[in-house]
Amino acid sequence: MKIALFPGSFDPVTKAHVDIVKRSVNLFDKFYIGVGVNSSKQGLLPVSKREEMLRAVFAYDERIHIIAYEGLTVDFCRSINADYMIRGIRTVSDFEYEKAIAQMNHALEPEIESIFIVSKPGYSSISSSIVREIIRYNGDVSQFIPKEAIPFLQ
Amino acid sequence: MKIALFPGSFDPVTKAHVDIVKRSVNLFDKFYIGVGVNSSKQGLLPVSKREEMLRAVFAYDERIHIIAYEGLTVDFCRSINADYMIRGIRTVSDFEYEKAIAQMNHALEPEIESIFIVSKPGYSSISSSIVREIIRYNGDVSQFIPKEAIPFLQ
Amino acid sequence: MKIALFPGSFDPVTKAHVDIVKRSVNLFDKFYIGVGVNSSKQGLLPVSKREEMLRAVFAYDERIHIIAYEGLTVDFCRSINADYMIRGIRTVSDFEYEKAIAQMNHALEPEIESIFIVSKPGYSSISSSIVREIIRYNGDVSQFIPKEAIPFLQ
Amino acid sequence: MKIALFPGSFDPVTKAHVDIVKRSVNLFDKFYIGVGVNSSKQGLLPVSKREEMLRAVFAYDERIHIIAYEGLTVDFCRSINADYMIRGIRTVSDFEYEKAIAQMNHALEPEIESIFIVSKPGYSSISSSIVREIIRYNGDVSQFIPKEAIPFLQ
Amino acid sequence: MKIALFPGSFDPVTKAHVDIVKRSVNLFDKFYIGVGVNSSKQGLLPVSKREEMLRAVFAYDERIHIIAYEGLTVDFCRSINADYMIRGIRTVSDFEYEKAIAQMNHALEPEIESIFIVSKPGYSSISSSIVREIIRYNGDVSQFIPKEAIPFLQ
Amino acid sequence: MKIALFPGSFDPVTKAHVDIVKRSVNLFDKFYIGVGVNSSKQGLLPVSKREEMLRAVFAYDERIHIIAYEGLTVDFCRSINADYMIRGIRTVSDFEYEKAIAQMNHALEPEIESIFIVSKPGYSSISSSIVREIIRYNGDVSQFIPKEAIPFLQ
Repeated sequence: MKIALFPGSFDPVTKAHVDIVKRSVNLFDKFYIGVGVNSSKQGLLPVSKREEMLRAVFAYDERIHIIAYEGLTVDFCRSINADYMIRGIRTVSDFEYEKAIAQMNHALEPEIESIFIVSKPGYSSISSSIVREIIRYNGDVSQFIPKEAIPFLQ
Repeated sequence: MKIALFPGSFDPVTKAHVDIVKRSVNLFDKFYIGVGVNSSKQGLLPVSKREEMLRAVFAYDERIHIIAYEGLTVDFCRSINADYMIRGIRTVSDFEYEKAIAQMNHALEPEIESIFIVSKPGYSSISSSIVREIIRYNGDVSQFIPKEAIPFLQ
Repeated sequence: MKIALFPGSFDPVTKAHVDIVKRSVNLFDKFYIGVGVNSSKQGLLPVSKREEMLRAVFAYDERIHIIAYEGLTVDFCRSINADYMIRGIRTVSDFEYEKAIAQMNHALEPEIESIFIVSKPGYSSISSSIVREIIRYNGDVSQFIPKEAIPFLQ
Repeated sequence: MKIALFPGSFDPVTKAHVDIVKRSVNLFDKFYIGVGVNSSKQGLLPVSKREEMLRAVFAYDERIHIIAYEGLTVDFCRSINADYMIRGIRTVSDFEYEKAIAQMNHALEPEIESIFIVSKPGYSSISSSIVREIIRYNGDVSQFIPKEAIPFLQ
Repeated sequence: MKIALFPGSFDPVTKAHVDIVKRSVNLFDKFYIGVGVNSSKQGLLPVSKREEMLRAVFAYDERIHIIAYEGLTVDFCRSINADYMIRGIRTVSDFEYEKAIAQMNHALEPEIESIFIVSKPGYSSISSSIVREIIRYNGDVSQFIPKEAIPFLQ
Repeated sequence: MKIALFPGSFDPVTKAHVDIVKRSVNLFDKFYIGVGVNSSKQGLLPVSKREEMLRAVFAYDERIHIIAYEGLTVDFCRSINADYMIRGIRTVSDFEYEKAIAQMNHALEPEIESIFIVSKPGYSSISSSIVREIIRYNGDVSQFIPKEAIPFLQ
């Protein structure tokens, strides 16, 4: 059985995230979306809301499981028996950071492979931090957010 | 009438900012320099001082208007009827961030174009954050700051 | 009178080029598109065909003039009295190269300013060299090329 | 059935290529390694030798098939029914180029997904072009090349 | 007498730092490792512990001196008569930041040269911030940290 | 005795090269500037002229020796007993390429260290290839080239 984890903060989930999932889910039998809990960083949405939001967005596919986790991502992979970690890369800075993380994860746990997916051009400029900024000032984010997620932002 | 906004935090204004303005102002009839107010981030100088500083530096050109604003930059553009947004880019990291912002702004408000200017080589290593660090330790920043701005740092 | 030059090889013109022109032309009274002739590099299309193609694409706007040139771009700017040079930037590598060119041009001719435009996300992955590769193998480039240019590729 | 293509020039195959294959092959039922034939570029090794070399290196795994192809990579994918294209990325420049290719391929053929793999740190500095340079001057490339490939370099 | 400063936060020291020191120390008669004290940023380890840790790691070489400092790095260089500043660069983002710092330092103090060292491939993905993250969740960092430093992490 | 090699094509030597030499020469007892001969690439100037040009520029310092070489740079280092290789880096693309070369050289010859120097901001946009382009079209390169080198360009 091929199991993947797509970790992230999803604060909030964007169309770029949805695109990454659609492009990679068919490679796996089970696909976890893991909401990383970072107790030292105050997010826009509480973790429980992010989980509900992701469940609403991905309700159509029963291979997809939404789950929050704390601690090191490689440890969480092991606990759910995931052998693959999915990461979206949009920019060069993303790429460099993800590459360092992937190489250190590989040193910690050589059995877990990182798989990188490049999102569609129309989505590659969507960043959760800019989306949060627009939400903060009551701008319209409906272009950047899947429609099932929008009710959770109100 | 062609109206531009050059948004930034200008904390403090540097010679690189002055260079960007000089290189782009002639394209426009009215040129706003907007000091973005970020209530969640404590700056080195209060916003009012940054405005005064900018007014002292650009007093010679009556097309240039200094104004502080809060909220989304595209909303502010609309409120002042600016069709162009000016951005300086110094480094690759700047470029990537600015590109994402420009593309999201374009999605939010397709009528507003972003114009990028590369500063002179001698100025492209000047970063406001390094200048702030030097000020913090009482180093000499007179090479990096326009002379009209220096009194405001004391 | 504000005069701009948008130099390039346009071998062939793409939708990304058209986007750059649309985003910048309103800033100027006269807008030259200059097809740089590089005698040492064999292109896909002869220069005269690239000029015709560009004329077909931009026939609707009488501010736009198509012209081939040889030699240094700054020298050509001077000969047509252009004070601004327009450059599209899609990627980090583009940016670095364009920045070096802009800074050396500025050293050679301080009166000429370089203006950078970032193309729409959907267009920022279109590169003329990949388009040429697709044409070489008879692939379908109609998504990447303005429709007025397509007859010139046959 | 999940089918992947790992395209490249493999002139010559390096330990970095082997690492990419090992990290991704388990996701697929059939895994093609495609040697792209570029008639306009003279390589170090003839294409037939590159195929033999790859067959020697990957003889141990019957899911892996070595095949030379000409033309567009997406067309070749279609002809072998591959839904996934595997690409290794080592550097930022690689990443940008691969991202543009992936996005244009996606426009041409939305059914084919590109999967990116980052090679192990010890291998990420190995570039075929530097290896060719070392071979040209009779340097020792045994650290960079899988041992099964070495006889083909003599 | 040739004197160098290798400044950093060393929170904690990693094998990448040790590699940088080994590669550059022979160029100098005296080699300071400076632990920069940043009063506004709470680190993982107190500065005194970082100094002890560095002393344990570099005890074997009497040219190496460990010292904490506050204020601008160029000012500290002057106070210890260092003419060279050593910096490790692992990634493109590091490089850009270090380049800006080096160029501003050069403007402030033209007598001090910055020397950049690229760490070994196996070490270039080791980042102190990822190491801190692993320590925070009780992961095993023994691959990334010199063995003499490990007792100081307990 | 500390011996360094600064390899390059120096076609032609620029002010950026001179800056790199000035910033690093004091670390060494003997400093070779090696003109790499690449028989497959036709340069602007013949190698013998590049050597004469470099001798004219660096005549004032007897630690500096100009020498042309063919073959792998690490082999040449060994033949002149150089333990250090000096490389200038101007841009991110330079950095990535140089990093790969440095890491492969280190694998081939662990005794030879690569030292990277960032040139002054005013010089970091000077690229030999753009200078060659300007020369080709009879543009004025006197800002970019040391004055002792200019007679060799006529």
